[in-house]
Amino acid sequence: MFETNATIELHHTDAAGAVFFADYFVIAHSAYERYMESIGFALDQILTSSAFRLPIVHAEADYRRPVSLGGQLSILLRVDPGNSAFTASYDFKDARGEVVAILKTVHVCVDKKTGEKRPLPQDLREAFLEITS
Amino acid sequence: MFETNATIELHHTDAAGAVFFADYFVIAHSAYERYMESIGFALDQILTSSAFRLPIVHAEADYRRPVSLGGQLSILLRVDPGNSAFTASYDFKDARGEVVAILKTVHVCVDKKTGEKRPLPQDLREAFLEITS
Amino acid sequence: MFETNATIELHHTDAAGAVFFADYFVIAHSAYERYMESIGFALDQILTSSAFRLPIVHAEADYRRPVSLGGQLSILLRVDPGNSAFTASYDFKDARGEVVAILKTVHVCVDKKTGEKRPLPQDLREAFLEITS
Amino acid sequence: MFETNATIELHHTDAAGAVFFADYFVIAHSAYERYMESIGFALDQILTSSAFRLPIVHAEADYRRPVSLGGQLSILLRVDPGNSAFTASYDFKDARGEVVAILKTVHVCVDKKTGEKRPLPQDLREAFLEITS
Repeated sequence: MFETNATIELHHTDAAGAVFFADYFVIAHSAYERYMESIGFALDQILTSSAFRLPIVHAEADYRRPVSLGGQLSILLRVDPGNSAFTASYDFKDARGEVVAILKTVHVCVDKKTGEKRPLPQDLREAFLEITS
Repeated sequence: MFETNATIELHHTDAAGAVFFADYFVIAHSAYERYMESIGFALDQILTSSAFRLPIVHAEADYRRPVSLGGQLSILLRVDPGNSAFTASYDFKDARGEVVAILKTVHVCVDKKTGEKRPLPQDLREAFLEITS
Repeated sequence: MFETNATIELHHTDAAGAVFFADYFVIAHSAYERYMESIGFALDQILTSSAFRLPIVHAEADYRRPVSLGGQLSILLRVDPGNSAFTASYDFKDARGEVVAILKTVHVCVDKKTGEKRPLPQDLREAFLEITS
Repeated sequence: MFETNATIELHHTDAAGAVFFADYFVIAHSAYERYMESIGFALDQILTSSAFRLPIVHAEADYRRPVSLGGQLSILLRVDPGNSAFTASYDFKDARGEVVAILKTVHVCVDKKTGEKRPLPQDLREAFLEITS
């Protein structure tokens, strides 16, 4: 389990007065970037120095409660690695601990040059398992 | 079936060179706004003058192919209304007609004041059925 | 003079009920991308095939009136080329012809490899002058 | 002087490989929101409970150096209050202390109901002067 947080800023909100639904995906990805950095696989290093990429092939969100400007959210992230893919799950909770949204992103590991699916690098898999166990 | 289109602009892309996954949800919502306007239920009128709201309770996307700057996409939108909810489905196709992404948003109809779930207004339901039949 | 238009969508707005100030820059850049495409210098082609880049070194905006969801804007764009830089100016008008915002972006021409400032390519300069005269 | 920081995330970047120019305004506004919260004038409280609003009438940015994914920025913010307006200035520095961008936003104080310009509330003016002195 990896935990991080986010504050709802004006640009996240829309004229209906709460967070615009697509911005939850942006915030979830920020959490994912922090997580990847924390396990030694910062995305900028993957982009510039690795033979693989981890594109998202599926994303989904369930929205339980609207959150408005200034809302303090905590995000619990866990990763379930498969052979050549992994799923990241994100629980968004408000300041009272209520779940406001649950998101999921599914990433596949592909070869940077060919774009073909390939197994997760062993050290990345181990990093995933360490932090989630 | 409602059809609209979108051009991939620089702000949709990221340093990996293609559309950032969350931006598909933004583009899908733009298509939804055009559709709603086309059936006489423009979102700004709903926000200012209606007794109901149509918040999104679920969203999902499957990404098939990366699309890069300048990409011309067509978006096919269809709506399946239920009693107090409806699902909007979006097929994104590139200039060659290949499906690049498939999205879905699920909206519930709630009372503007109480936030309680309520049936879809009859005229909105009819507008949905007209265009999708 | 190049003219294009934009509709204010939900994601452009914020909880204060009108367009978030930074989104005017996003919309202006979309207008710029359409303009560049119209004069034969689409940004994706510049990025993939040209020896130069046109990064923005300055941007500014004056906001006259708030615009809300569903607002129909027309954008008048003109470009004033210098030796190794150019200024793009954008007048945003609402459906009644009232100016709601005036923006400006200043771009310099740099060598793609070295990043050093260089003169505008002659054919780009001519394309700028043709459309603006 | 108020100091905060930001990490460049994937959604801030574009296909040219660095931060999209408009995102600096988004990041600057986040810094402004944190500052306002720190002096006891959180924006969500202003929106829900105050008789005034502080809309932006001018914004500008000078870009000195491109910043790429993972870049760690510190933002120095200072506010210069006038009678019924104030200017917020933002110096963005990278991890080596080099200035990468300088931004400015000008806000006017208006009456929430009439939209007419009015003097800054005395307690807000004092809060501005305390932190900036």
